[in-house]
Parts: sequence; C-alpha cells; structure tokens
Amino acid sequence: MYSEKVMDHFQHPRNVGEIENASGVGTVGNAKCGDIMRIYLDIDDNGIIQDVKFKTFGCGAAVATSSMATELVKGKNIQQALEVTNKAVMEALDGLPPVKVHCSLLAEEAIHAALWDYAEKN
Amino acid sequence: MYSEKVMDHFQHPRNVGEIENASGVGTVGNAKCGDIMRIYLDIDDNGIIQDVKFKTFGCGAAVATSSMATELVKGKNIQQALEVTNKAVMEALDGLPPVKVHCSLLAEEAIHAALWDYAEKN
Ligand code: FES
Repeated sequence: MYSEKVMDHFQHPRNVGEIENASGVGTVGNAKCGDIMRIYLDIDDNGIIQDVKFKTFGCGAAVATSSMATELVKGKNIQQALEVTNKAVMEALDGLPPVKVHCSLLAEEAIHAALWDYAEKN
Repeated sequence: MYSEKVMDHFQHPRNVGEIENASGVGTVGNAKCGDIMRIYLDIDDNGIIQDVKFKTFGCGAAVATSSMATELVKGKNIQQALEVTNKAVMEALDGLPPVKVHCSLLAEEAIHAALWDYAEKN
C-alpha cells in the first residue's frame, strides 16, 4: 500500500522537533481528519532556510510527507521553498494512496503559514 | 485539545512492535481516514493474554488509544479483553476530541479481529 520511501520517512522521520525563537512558525489543521501540524523555520539574513523542524499529531502519511517536505526546503531560499508543493513532495516519496493525499496537504500548508509568519515579522 | 494522558501515550507509546508466531493477529482499516492498524496477541494455554503489540499508520489519537488499549488487555482473559471497549479506553485516557473518536475504534476493532483470529485457530 505504501512505497518504501514513505515507510522509511514514517519510521525514521527527519527534522522532528521544535526551534526556539524560530524565524517563522506555521500551525495548520486538517478539516478532514482533525489533525494538526506545526512547522518551525530558521531563516538567515540572506533569506536561506538554515533549519526546519516539525511536530504533528497526524498519521503516518502526514509524518512521511512532513519529513520529506522539510528535507526539500532545507537550504533553499523563500521562493524555492514556496515551490515545494505537496505534489512535489508526493513525487519525491514515490506516491501516496489517493485516500491519504489530504494528509500531504498539511506539510505544504504549514510551510506556507510559517513563511507567511516570517514575512509578517520582517 | 488533548489530555495529558493522551499526549503521554502518543509521545511514549507502550507495546509498539510485532510478535512472531502470535496466537492471534488482527488487521483493520479505518474507512473514515484510510489508516490501518495491526494487533498481535500472545495467549497462553489458560487463555490469558501474556503479551500484546501493535503497529499503526494512524494518527496520534490512534497511537494513544492503541497504547492504552494494549495496556488494558495485557494479563486479561479473552472475555475480559472483549470488554475493553473504545469507550473504556477513551475514559482511561481522560477523553478525546469528538473529531478523533473514529481513530479510537481502530484499537478495539483490531483487538477483536486478533481474538477472532485466535479463536479460529484453536
Ligand atoms: S485520522 Fe486516521 S487514525 Fe486518526
């Protein structure tokens, strides 16, 4: 049912945690299942994402997509990070079952919310 | 949003894993969110549940309820295990938000499926 990459990122999620005094924090909820996700970004003076962490109460698909999404935005600038769509994340994971696609939206939305939070503060 | 007990069992889940040559195995899916859960039971000759493990792709609420449910059925006989309803599990966890109640059904259903698997084999 799940690709090897999904299982790998589910069982060994990258970038789980929090960042104190983060440059931007985004919290989003999933209307369909009631799950929540929070992304922390550490952005340097050149607008490069130096570090990123996430926390979620979501399912394995939410964990795997967040893990992959955080890997994809790390080291990128803001414009590049905005281009990391949930479609790109799913492709990097070799796909997700259709019933779990809504879970992958959490990561994209939380990253956008965190970038928005950063933009408002600067 | 979540009780302290839910967060404790989510962050430190008890009885995660598999049992080789289990007496009974139950796998169930959740139609509402597409998540899956598997419970393994090790039942001795006196019908006592000596060990129980679970694996799930489900969310934090599914993890917390499974963790608590496995604690509640361990050491019990089959009749007692059948009486560990999702309502009893939710009470032991000091409640769950209504939107997550469907997640708690996974543990109850998987335990029943594993007991059924055991009964069919014996
Ligand atoms: S949302 Fe699927 S188990 Fe909770």
